[in-house]
Amino acid sequence: MPSTDAAEDLGLLSPGQAGSPVEAATGDAAYVRAMLDAEAALTRAQAALGLAPAAAAQAVTAAAAETARYDVRDLALRARSGGNPVIPLVADLTAAVAEHDRQAAVHVHRGATSQDILDTAAMLVAARALEPVLADLGRAAGALARLAAEHRDTPIAGRTLTQHAVPTTFGLKAAGWRSLALDAHERLAAVRATLPAQLGGAAGTLAAFHAFAEADDSTADPDPGPDLGLRLLAGYAAETGLAEPTLPWHTLRTPVADLAGALAFTAGALGKLAADVLLMSRTEIGELGESSGGGSSAMPHKANPVRATLIAAAARQVPALAAVLYAGLAAEDERPAGAWHAEWQPLRQALRLVGGAARDAAELTEGLRVHPNRMRGNLDATDGLVISERLAAVLAALIGRGEARQALSRASRRVVDQGMELDEALRQEPGIADALPQDRLRELTDPTQYAGSAGALVDRALRRSDTARNPT
Amino acid sequence: MPSTDAAEDLGLLSPGQAGSPVEAATGDAAYVRAMLDAEAALTRAQAALGLAPAAAAQAVTAAAAETARYDVRDLALRARSGGNPVIPLVADLTAAVAEHDRQAAVHVHRGATSQDILDTAAMLVAARALEPVLADLGRAAGALARLAAEHRDTPIAGRTLTQHAVPTTFGLKAAGWRSLALDAHERLAAVRATLPAQLGGAAGTLAAFHAFAEADDSTADPDPGPDLGLRLLAGYAAETGLAEPTLPWHTLRTPVADLAGALAFTAGALGKLAADVLLMSRTEIGELGESSGGGSSAMPHKANPVRATLIAAAARQVPALAAVLYAGLAAEDERPAGAWHAEWQPLRQALRLVGGAARDAAELTEGLRVHPNRMRGNLDATDGLVISERLAAVLAALIGRGEARQALSRASRRVVDQGMELDEALRQEPGIADALPQDRLRELTDPTQYAGSAGALVDRALRRSDTARNPT
Amino acid sequence: MPSTDAAEDLGLLSPGQAGSPVEAATGDAAYVRAMLDAEAALTRAQAALGLAPAAAAQAVTAAAAETARYDVRDLALRARSGGNPVIPLVADLTAAVAEHDRQAAVHVHRGATSQDILDTAAMLVAARALEPVLADLGRAAGALARLAAEHRDTPIAGRTLTQHAVPTTFGLKAAGWRSLALDAHERLAAVRATLPAQLGGAAGTLAAFHAFAEADDSTADPDPGPDLGLRLLAGYAAETGLAEPTLPWHTLRTPVADLAGALAFTAGALGKLAADVLLMSRTEIGELGESSGGGSSAMPHKANPVRATLIAAAARQVPALAAVLYAGLAAEDERPAGAWHAEWQPLRQALRLVGGAARDAAELTEGLRVHPNRMRGNLDATDGLVISERLAAVLAALIGRGEARQALSRASRRVVDQGMELDEALRQEPGIADALPQDRLRELTDPTQYAGSAGALVDRALRRSDTARNPT
Amino acid sequence: MPSTDAAEDLGLLSPGQAGSPVEAATGDAAYVRAMLDAEAALTRAQAALGLAPAAAAQAVTAAAAETARYDVRDLALRARSGGNPVIPLVADLTAAVAEHDRQAAVHVHRGATSQDILDTAAMLVAARALEPVLADLGRAAGALARLAAEHRDTPIAGRTLTQHAVPTTFGLKAAGWRSLALDAHERLAAVRATLPAQLGGAAGTLAAFHAFAEADDSTADPDPGPDLGLRLLAGYAAETGLAEPTLPWHTLRTPVADLAGALAFTAGALGKLAADVLLMSRTEIGELGESSGGGSSAMPHKANPVRATLIAAAARQVPALAAVLYAGLAAEDERPAGAWHAEWQPLRQALRLVGGAARDAAELTEGLRVHPNRMRGNLDATDGLVISERLAAVLAALIGRGEARQALSRASRRVVDQGMELDEALRQEPGIADALPQDRLRELTDPTQYAGSAGALVDRALRRSDTARNPT
Repeated sequence: MPSTDAAEDLGLLSPGQAGSPVEAATGDAAYVRAMLDAEAALTRAQAALGLAPAAAAQAVTAAAAETARYDVRDLALRARSGGNPVIPLVADLTAAVAEHDRQAAVHVHRGATSQDILDTAAMLVAARALEPVLADLGRAAGALARLAAEHRDTPIAGRTLTQHAVPTTFGLKAAGWRSLALDAHERLAAVRATLPAQLGGAAGTLAAFHAFAEADDSTADPDPGPDLGLRLLAGYAAETGLAEPTLPWHTLRTPVADLAGALAFTAGALGKLAADVLLMSRTEIGELGESSGGGSSAMPHKANPVRATLIAAAARQVPALAAVLYAGLAAEDERPAGAWHAEWQPLRQALRLVGGAARDAAELTEGLRVHPNRMRGNLDATDGLVISERLAAVLAALIGRGEARQALSRASRRVVDQGMELDEALRQEPGIADALPQDRLRELTDPTQYAGSAGALVDRALRRSDTARNPT
Repeated sequence: MPSTDAAEDLGLLSPGQAGSPVEAATGDAAYVRAMLDAEAALTRAQAALGLAPAAAAQAVTAAAAETARYDVRDLALRARSGGNPVIPLVADLTAAVAEHDRQAAVHVHRGATSQDILDTAAMLVAARALEPVLADLGRAAGALARLAAEHRDTPIAGRTLTQHAVPTTFGLKAAGWRSLALDAHERLAAVRATLPAQLGGAAGTLAAFHAFAEADDSTADPDPGPDLGLRLLAGYAAETGLAEPTLPWHTLRTPVADLAGALAFTAGALGKLAADVLLMSRTEIGELGESSGGGSSAMPHKANPVRATLIAAAARQVPALAAVLYAGLAAEDERPAGAWHAEWQPLRQALRLVGGAARDAAELTEGLRVHPNRMRGNLDATDGLVISERLAAVLAALIGRGEARQALSRASRRVVDQGMELDEALRQEPGIADALPQDRLRELTDPTQYAGSAGALVDRALRRSDTARNPT
Repeated sequence: MPSTDAAEDLGLLSPGQAGSPVEAATGDAAYVRAMLDAEAALTRAQAALGLAPAAAAQAVTAAAAETARYDVRDLALRARSGGNPVIPLVADLTAAVAEHDRQAAVHVHRGATSQDILDTAAMLVAARALEPVLADLGRAAGALARLAAEHRDTPIAGRTLTQHAVPTTFGLKAAGWRSLALDAHERLAAVRATLPAQLGGAAGTLAAFHAFAEADDSTADPDPGPDLGLRLLAGYAAETGLAEPTLPWHTLRTPVADLAGALAFTAGALGKLAADVLLMSRTEIGELGESSGGGSSAMPHKANPVRATLIAAAARQVPALAAVLYAGLAAEDERPAGAWHAEWQPLRQALRLVGGAARDAAELTEGLRVHPNRMRGNLDATDGLVISERLAAVLAALIGRGEARQALSRASRRVVDQGMELDEALRQEPGIADALPQDRLRELTDPTQYAGSAGALVDRALRRSDTARNPT
Repeated sequence: MPSTDAAEDLGLLSPGQAGSPVEAATGDAAYVRAMLDAEAALTRAQAALGLAPAAAAQAVTAAAAETARYDVRDLALRARSGGNPVIPLVADLTAAVAEHDRQAAVHVHRGATSQDILDTAAMLVAARALEPVLADLGRAAGALARLAAEHRDTPIAGRTLTQHAVPTTFGLKAAGWRSLALDAHERLAAVRATLPAQLGGAAGTLAAFHAFAEADDSTADPDPGPDLGLRLLAGYAAETGLAEPTLPWHTLRTPVADLAGALAFTAGALGKLAADVLLMSRTEIGELGESSGGGSSAMPHKANPVRATLIAAAARQVPALAAVLYAGLAAEDERPAGAWHAEWQPLRQALRLVGGAARDAAELTEGLRVHPNRMRGNLDATDGLVISERLAAVLAALIGRGEARQALSRASRRVVDQGMELDEALRQEPGIADALPQDRLRELTDPTQYAGSAGALVDRALRRSDTARNPT
């Protein structure tokens, strides 16, 4: 007989997110709390419209606040028969309310469907979880802005398809990473601002609320004003702090799909940072290092880029989870048999992976060790050929395109074979010494003097206001 | 020896998109045209800054316009050695220019890298392909608005987890489908408006343009104004009609990821429509029918919902393609070895699938056959129990919650076992006939009188302005 | 400060797997136990070769057996700095061993790398988790065999693209579901039989074991027999009960990819069963029902197909997780920075989803309610046209193909418009009454008499031996 | 009005596969040919059982062989109304047969459903496409065997999480790549050997064949032997050269899922090779090079690893396509509305990507340039610390664990700070010079002398018979 404990996931296989605020904000207990918040908001919203006594609203709110009395594992096991955790939670909440106020108990969950509560809870959880994510993206963007400014002109080899191409600057690289972090921040913040409450009742018509209203007061005049359901929806949304949806969205899953997209984007955006850090930290390249690498007792020289590794691992997982969530848009009927249930874990998992990656990105960028000397050294790995593009351009104008190419080719060979400096080798080529003074030739062959618009691009990119630092 | 012809994909396995405007806008020839447009724009932008003669701009533009002279299959085969199709295309364009103006030939592609051209072409293709998609989404949204208005109060069974729950209206269903179509339109239109041109040169610094400038006119004063590269980037973007990016985005793949998200969203949004149409068209349900179903000669009764089927097939594929594109964000270095190349086909395929699905959705919704009698008939499938929620609420107020439940349960049994009408069966329960007049009971058991806020929700949803109908 | 508890995943969002044996077999505690098993096996294997004292093997084995002393959450949090949970676990195991035998402590984990332990643990967990999965697939296959045999000749509408096509039998449907369950069983059992232990040391060369051997006994003759590392690998595999790999597979991820494929297959195979049960349970179709559906207090008529829903939810998730695992094959170097870490949760999650789905499938099939009367009733939904294929064939032979088609078409119209029986309507067509006696015509229009080879196919499918029932 | 041509995909965006035999074997024309093969096989199989005249079989076979008369683009466009290409193809084939033999025309496609033909065609295409894939995997395995043997003892840095760990050999690396290539070959060959023909008729019961049999000869005794449908299925499978399925598999998609798994495996397996080649080819590492890299006119030093790049791009795409195919297992009814249609392009695309990757892998491995001097040079990048694991082990045995660690740490610092050799630095540590003679210390610090079991592992791995070289 397997014990309950054995089944728990406590983060052992998730070092990227273990101990992070997002992990805590998305645990089962956080979902229970959010479901209880949704139930309490519903009763309060009904009370505000006279659909429930004020005392009931108080009683439900009070019972919902006693989160310690709900046994998460027990709820999980009882969720099985009906296929969702709201059913047993409503039973427990009803019992808790009845302990203090028997009359109020009947108002628990009245008129709602399980999906109203679980969807609202998921949005509350997402809204709460995204706070630290946005803050960490802001930290990362800030650190990257400082790196970009500091290394605006630090030369580094530009690499394409794994090979040195022409020089660029580390500042431009950092500005690019920051640009992605800001893009991610924008997308997540925009989605977060629109996360809606869910309320529709059994089939999305809010009909039960009308039924209870007519049952409770069958002699009353029908309300002459705005539709009762719409007023309740507005009040409920306000109570939860979430946005009011135009329609119940039981099977109009725009909010979940938008979250999916923004989360996949963020994981990928940070994945770019991680990919570069991993390459630039390689033993042979050594241009970057994490502040405190994962050590190895038997191999003291090893300083593993652990944070970049964990970000990279997240970036490999979130797009697939997002694909599941996008596929969930095609949800049949008024509540689907599977598509909705298939959202729950992938959404939570995506939040957690992104939350861990954002934390790691903040720590990584704030502590990044930059080694300009290794950057400079690596620029020489092609014996100066990294600026052949520039030489080809300038020499072509002087001695013709074909002749320039041949001269460059011959000089390159001498550089590699005889260990010559490139400017010396070029001076031995016919016509070049005459056309170009030694100083000019030295300048032209200097890989640190060929950054093009890199500085101007960094300056422009840094003018993009760092909205990420003041998340709403 | 395999023949060239055998390799072609002419749409045989893609009936969803075959013959659609998006298919034509995304074919290999469309990519070649867009690459040529990008090359011509680049030379014109250089000419505008004095980096190339005006005659060169004219010559390149003219040669680029002769699209018929470029052999697509030959380009495809020659693309192999360098790994991308720009390299052979530049060779052919250069030759074409040289035929008319030898001097101009040197200005073809000058300073650019292959990715500048292919990325710009991909954005041009996407922008062109999204036009008919947006138009078709607008058509679908318009047709759905009409259906929602016309059937605002047409009762239909609300179904959850495959079972009848409570009634809803077909109008609310159609309003929901429209809401998703508008969401998709908004997301695609927003992305389309920001698709950027790409220009960065070999490693994203635009350095080669500086090199050619200094080579062409080495005595000139260094430009005292804005950076040459930035001015060129702005001019090039303007020539292409695309947005100007803040930074070259060779490995900052926000535009591609945003396209991925919006396309996956659209496929899923239309997939919801298709999922419902497929279910409601089932032989036993028969509430909807496509205007002209796919027939079968041997089975004359079959009217297959072909368009919904093809939309559903698209909705199953695009999320996975989007996952590949999101994963491409984690692109290393200044140009990645694989992540970029892995974008090309999935992006095209996603555009095509969505384009086909949007066309099918427009045709499907415009021709949808609605059968209110079947909708009404199906509402009786549970012998009235579909409104048990309402009865439970009203009876509980009259005779107490427990008693009401038992009365309903006994009456239900009589309905099923003895074929009674539900109102009659209820009248036999103690206390009910006294509490409820016969008319009121009949009304309470009428499944067409329990739509809750459905009408008000439809009205509100239809007030959402139909921006999709006037795509920019 | 987020509390630890809040972060836990106790199954609240996973009703499919909550409380299942696979959930318990794959929890964090199960992973800790498996890692400890691997460590103990390693020391024992070394002791068997004289690389460690027998006392050390005993001490490590004893300390590893005290699973209660390892704090899973604490391990999870400490896993963060090095990026994997083995590092803190080794520290705790070493301390535990040292309490009893200081000399033995040095032999804990000696020569191994974290991945040796975690990979071995993952294979042990998978092997243990697959036992109940295989058993549940066997149960499902057995139940389906009984259904197929019992309903070998129960007529049912064959449905294609949502429409009635021609009749088939429920037995053939059940035989098909069983066929997929057996396919899944075969694939999982084959993978399970080959799950390998992992041992390679820091870079897969097993060099540290040689180093310790030479350090411990530097004067000894080099072993003249088989390579020390290979002998250790064999002994270690034997101690774990797993297969011996040809090579260390730190970045040769065949075992994980094979698991991914077999798990995705199983989820999909059961997803087919679920898809059909969901459709056939729909209120309007009503041919099947789950033994005890999820109820709704307000809607007593609802009997939700909860198990099929949860299986369907699993089938939507596992393929995406498998895609992450397949992508992990492209793991760089001797240990990758991300690809490996990205395997852990998806593999566990896939095992859990499949484990839950297999349990649900066993319960679903064993308790499935079959309603032959509804099957028979639905066959009449097209007023007999479901056998038009047969009539077309027979009539064409009698009165010519074109004439037969027209007669069928006219008769069909009379059936629909005038409520006639199809055989009567056909008798009014010229030439038919003469050519076909009334009895023969009635037989030809009887939808229960047109099952083709269905019975023979069921018989043949059932002869496939039910290996799933006796899992190895 | 978009032209037809513009829609074509001629390989422009697929340099990995352009011009490959697999591309030709999977083009639209190849599918048409395979569908025609299936139709001809069906008529021949019927003729063999007396269900069609021998002349009809000859006529259909002859008309099916005239592949040039079928207009692929026209078929693609006409496929739209019914949702699949078989419907228009049957019309064209019927017309072609009728030109020569009016009587035979009626036997075209008789009794079959579109899916019978398209599924059979897909299996024929897969079987044909896998031939060159298997051959290319065999070539790659052969080349890798040679590399592994030649470099059995070539030392190279073992790298984990991007950092040098301990030495390994290039031979072991190559043996690992080969091991994956053989694994892929095994999986693909196993799937290929079981690809089944498809035949079930409208709903998988083969009923139409019975109907035609009874119509053609209504007086005949019912066949007393084996079921007619089963005999036809066997004969049809034999005519196609494919395996005979136990059941029609219209919605039992094991063959497609198995293909998906084997293709995703192969892409990933080759992706590992590509990932390593890309890293080892980086400018700073330089241990490997492709035989003829993609060049750059402006940057003569660039030799891009194009083949590895294209393989890596394929490895990023196939898992997602496989996920779509696995998800297709959950296909409802007797033919699904979407799941089947969603298989067509992903299956073809996966075959093409894998076909291209296999060709690239063969070329890459056969032409790989290995630079043992760079491998040796890189081993010194940590100034000897790459063998600290060995030193720690040996010194611990001599001077105690703690003392050994401190000595190593101090010596390492002198190596880095003062540029000392590691053996010299260690000799300055107390107790070490006494305990270890100079020669022994030099040996212990030699990174080329610490390969552990690498050689033995290579030998063992190479004994795995190279089945891939003689594909069946």
